[in-house]
Amino acid sequence: MIPYAAPVRDVRFVLEEMLEHGSLALPGFEEASPDLVEAVLEEAARLAGEVWAPLNASGDRQGCTRRDDGGVSVPDGFAEAYRAYAEGGWNGIGVSEALGGQGLPEVVASAVQEMLHGANMALGLCPMLTAGAIEALAHHGSDEQQATYLPKLVEGTWTGTMNLTEPQAGSDLSKVRTRAVPQEDGSYRLFGQKIYITWGEHDAAENIIHLVLARKPDAPEGNKGISLFLVPKFLVNQDGSLGERNDVTCAAIEHKLGIHGSPTCTLSFGENDGAIGYRVGEEGRGLNHMFTMMNEARHKVGIQGIGVAERACQHAFAYALDRVQGRSPRSGRNDCTISDHLDVRRMLLSMRARTDALRALALFCAAQLDVARHAADESERGAAQARVDVLIPVVKAFSTDQAVEIASLGVQVHGGMGYIEETGAAQLLRDARIAPIYEGTNGIQALDLAGRKLQRDGGAALTQLIDEVEGTARALSATTELAPLGEALAGGAADLRAAMATLLEAGADPERGADAVQAYATPFLSLAGHVLCAWQMGRAALVATTAIANGRDEPFYTAKRQAADYAIRQWLPVGRAQRAVIEAGMASLAAFDAAAH
Amino acid sequence: MIPYAAPVRDVRFVLEEMLEHGSLALPGFEEASPDLVEAVLEEAARLAGEVWAPLNASGDRQGCTRRDDGGVSVPDGFAEAYRAYAEGGWNGIGVSEALGGQGLPEVVASAVQEMLHGANMALGLCPMLTAGAIEALAHHGSDEQQATYLPKLVEGTWTGTMNLTEPQAGSDLSKVRTRAVPQEDGSYRLFGQKIYITWGEHDAAENIIHLVLARKPDAPEGNKGISLFLVPKFLVNQDGSLGERNDVTCAAIEHKLGIHGSPTCTLSFGENDGAIGYRVGEEGRGLNHMFTMMNEARHKVGIQGIGVAERACQHAFAYALDRVQGRSPRSGRNDCTISDHLDVRRMLLSMRARTDALRALALFCAAQLDVARHAADESERGAAQARVDVLIPVVKAFSTDQAVEIASLGVQVHGGMGYIEETGAAQLLRDARIAPIYEGTNGIQALDLAGRKLQRDGGAALTQLIDEVEGTARALSATTELAPLGEALAGGAADLRAAMATLLEAGADPERGADAVQAYATPFLSLAGHVLCAWQMGRAALVATTAIANGRDEPFYTAKRQAADYAIRQWLPVGRAQRAVIEAGMASLAAFDAAAH
Repeated sequence: MIPYAAPVRDVRFVLEEMLEHGSLALPGFEEASPDLVEAVLEEAARLAGEVWAPLNASGDRQGCTRRDDGGVSVPDGFAEAYRAYAEGGWNGIGVSEALGGQGLPEVVASAVQEMLHGANMALGLCPMLTAGAIEALAHHGSDEQQATYLPKLVEGTWTGTMNLTEPQAGSDLSKVRTRAVPQEDGSYRLFGQKIYITWGEHDAAENIIHLVLARKPDAPEGNKGISLFLVPKFLVNQDGSLGERNDVTCAAIEHKLGIHGSPTCTLSFGENDGAIGYRVGEEGRGLNHMFTMMNEARHKVGIQGIGVAERACQHAFAYALDRVQGRSPRSGRNDCTISDHLDVRRMLLSMRARTDALRALALFCAAQLDVARHAADESERGAAQARVDVLIPVVKAFSTDQAVEIASLGVQVHGGMGYIEETGAAQLLRDARIAPIYEGTNGIQALDLAGRKLQRDGGAALTQLIDEVEGTARALSATTELAPLGEALAGGAADLRAAMATLLEAGADPERGADAVQAYATPFLSLAGHVLCAWQMGRAALVATTAIANGRDEPFYTAKRQAADYAIRQWLPVGRAQRAVIEAGMASLAAFDAAAH
Repeated sequence: MIPYAAPVRDVRFVLEEMLEHGSLALPGFEEASPDLVEAVLEEAARLAGEVWAPLNASGDRQGCTRRDDGGVSVPDGFAEAYRAYAEGGWNGIGVSEALGGQGLPEVVASAVQEMLHGANMALGLCPMLTAGAIEALAHHGSDEQQATYLPKLVEGTWTGTMNLTEPQAGSDLSKVRTRAVPQEDGSYRLFGQKIYITWGEHDAAENIIHLVLARKPDAPEGNKGISLFLVPKFLVNQDGSLGERNDVTCAAIEHKLGIHGSPTCTLSFGENDGAIGYRVGEEGRGLNHMFTMMNEARHKVGIQGIGVAERACQHAFAYALDRVQGRSPRSGRNDCTISDHLDVRRMLLSMRARTDALRALALFCAAQLDVARHAADESERGAAQARVDVLIPVVKAFSTDQAVEIASLGVQVHGGMGYIEETGAAQLLRDARIAPIYEGTNGIQALDLAGRKLQRDGGAALTQLIDEVEGTARALSATTELAPLGEALAGGAADLRAAMATLLEAGADPERGADAVQAYATPFLSLAGHVLCAWQMGRAALVATTAIANGRDEPFYTAKRQAADYAIRQWLPVGRAQRAVIEAGMASLAAFDAAAH
């Protein structure tokens, strides 16, 4: 089994050299020094590489088991590895100090998350869901709810879940039917079934806090009847100790393509007297409250994809540098490793360049999140939030789509070995494949970008980003070595601008607007992802060139420039083609009748 | 579970309307009438849909088991389903009557193969490998070998295997080390280990005939020392009855990502006295003899990908037409099926258009195979063979890469359900993922196309195909309705022509030729695949338009035109981008050092 080494060097390159540790200069991060961040990254890399990663393959093989008593056993070692994480204080690194966390910038928390997902995505899902619960309670919970639940969730002694989906309510949550019946004491009794609940039941923590979308019996239909409820697995006594087992049970766990170490549960609420729950936030605002945290959860899913992509790179590189096969086209030697063959190199460089690019964009987005939350100036916060709103669907959908492709390329690099489960490459493909589906399918992300986000500000936030892409293109063009990258990047920016204009025009059409935007949404997101990632690699190339000019002639910088060259000149053209796809119009889609095919 | 309905309508469209049953007019096919072909297709569809398809999911779940006695049990029902196939005479439909087959054209045999792979790819592999053994013996076996082995192989009572790969010899077969020691009676004793042997051991047939690459102890190193040997599982007595068990055993079976119903074996030859074998063909020509049949095996793997893609389409369409979710962007109704959402339609139409296009190209190639084998005129045969040589790497690699993408889109259409194994969509992705790897990885196919096939005739055969693409583009442009397709297709042809020129120029460079061709090979194959598939859909659109003009206003023709529109205007641009990828040059690849990344 190939060991996993967290990409500390590249993360530091992005944080220190590309983002120049901008988040650390924001109010509230006075105590976070570059040295502290460096130590955090090194320590996270150790936890990821030494504790979490060795359980990835065994967890996949063993999977989870629903026991006869209704409990769920997670794979051997997972509970201990989770405790090592919680006891190390990792669960709270991105949570504000006021809530008991360590208050590090999101950009650092995101880098750590990538390492943990790369090490063990199935296990990484457990704290990822808890983070959502923390976020929901921090924003919408009452003082009492925060006092009762937040400390344990932040320290990771308890874990959290998100209960949205029901069999008839998937992408369309307005169809949620779970009932919440008000009780005299102000609490509720919940009745209903939720499906696809990640880490919905397990034995790795003392308690599980379920956040559940449900509606009161007299609530109106649709979104406005939905409220958010907190349902603990074990009720919590006044003194904070655990009380009775609540009426929520795991009815089944799913048999999935991947993430076998993550129990995906069907939860039954109220099979007896009703599951005791407490409303969080305002009545009828449950969906809005969920969406508060969903934006960040979507960023985390993108990060997750990048973690798996990074691990796929490491597997593929290790195999290609070891596997002897064929005659080198250059040395003529008959015992070269396959990394010598240009077609294999193409796969490796494609994997590496894309993974670097996705990471740079996701961390750029995280840094903007820090600005949006912490900048002293309100207009600065607003501008950053506007960018975050545009970037998050791209980070979620583009990173996860690419992660699947990168993991699939990783299988291909291994040849026949890639298809054998013991090699580990196939697991990465199986695991990665969920990420384009959950937390809002990638189609939903595309509609969010091309519909809501683009149309509501007439493309203002994206225009500003495109302006910056063009600025980077000009800077590249002004250099001797990188000028061809500047030209290609400028072409990408022009394509994205033109496609945006097409979408805005289509969206403004009262007749067919919604249709047209839907038809173009996915190609548009793909185009935006390619251009924004290429932009980041253009910035990386400039930084690397400066470093080399300053005498830091490390192989890392040379490799980064090669990756940038590949990303901008070999990868970007494929994305740019999406402009032509959009401009070809939607006639065939509009006329398409699935029943006739 | 979604039933599988073999695509008889579309196969008939391609055979009858696009190819105008050209194969039936060739010498040797006098007895094959359109009516007979129709009956064969209907009957194959029945076998595929009723007998093979119902075992696909259960075979995946159960998998194969290596028993303590060294035998391998295939999933329940597989042996019976295989026997139904053999007893129905299906194994010999494409084999000449002289060899005991039914002598139907390759284009018909290919259509039947697609149906069987779509129904159950794991089971379909068994006769696919047998076909290779038949081919090898028919071309290179002695009269005695043919008399002893061919009848049983053709009727399917015995099955065949291909033993090429060894742990150190994968893509580079010159490294084969299995030894064949000559005996006084003219036979050989084989010693060595072969891996990844598809259906290498099983209990679904009376005997297994292994075709094995090995080298004599005094043979030279490299390709020229390799000969081809026939090693039966059970030795065959003079009277044709089965004799002693040979010294070849199954040491292990692989635990794979997919095709669980197909036993992938490690075979040990000569653990005791040596496995008795007989040389097939000339000494030292083993690799050449293998490549005789490999070309056709590669076509069959492409067909296999198309079979799985078709099934993925059927799953996705059935789900999307059934799943109620969200508000229709057009009717405004809140209970539409997801097939109403344009982003889902985009996925469905993309899957359907691509699958249709791949099928049309693969059957066009099969029809050219018929001409190459059967045309009365030698120059006509030669011209067809030259096209086949160019088309086969495209059919193999492009169809299988696309099949993986189509199966992955099929998962996405299902949303969360797609990730649950019981749904069946994930199995198709897992099964499809082997096809870009085996029978020569898709990287090897690209080198075959861009290197050997293109360089040896200076692009003559491909040029002729591009001329035909342009002819179709002109025909489209001359119509009122399809003119935009003509323009797009002409652009694709121009791109392919330009990229071909770049590759020929690069290949002629004595310094860096091999390097450059390797670097460009995969983008070039992708470009060729897109353009040739778009061409076929352009032809399909013309045929459908004529049919409609002639009063055959069936939904099938309208759907076909929509699929053609999508393929040429929405899909082709992505392929055309590969021209830009090639023209960006290979600087970053040439400089790339995997060890430094």
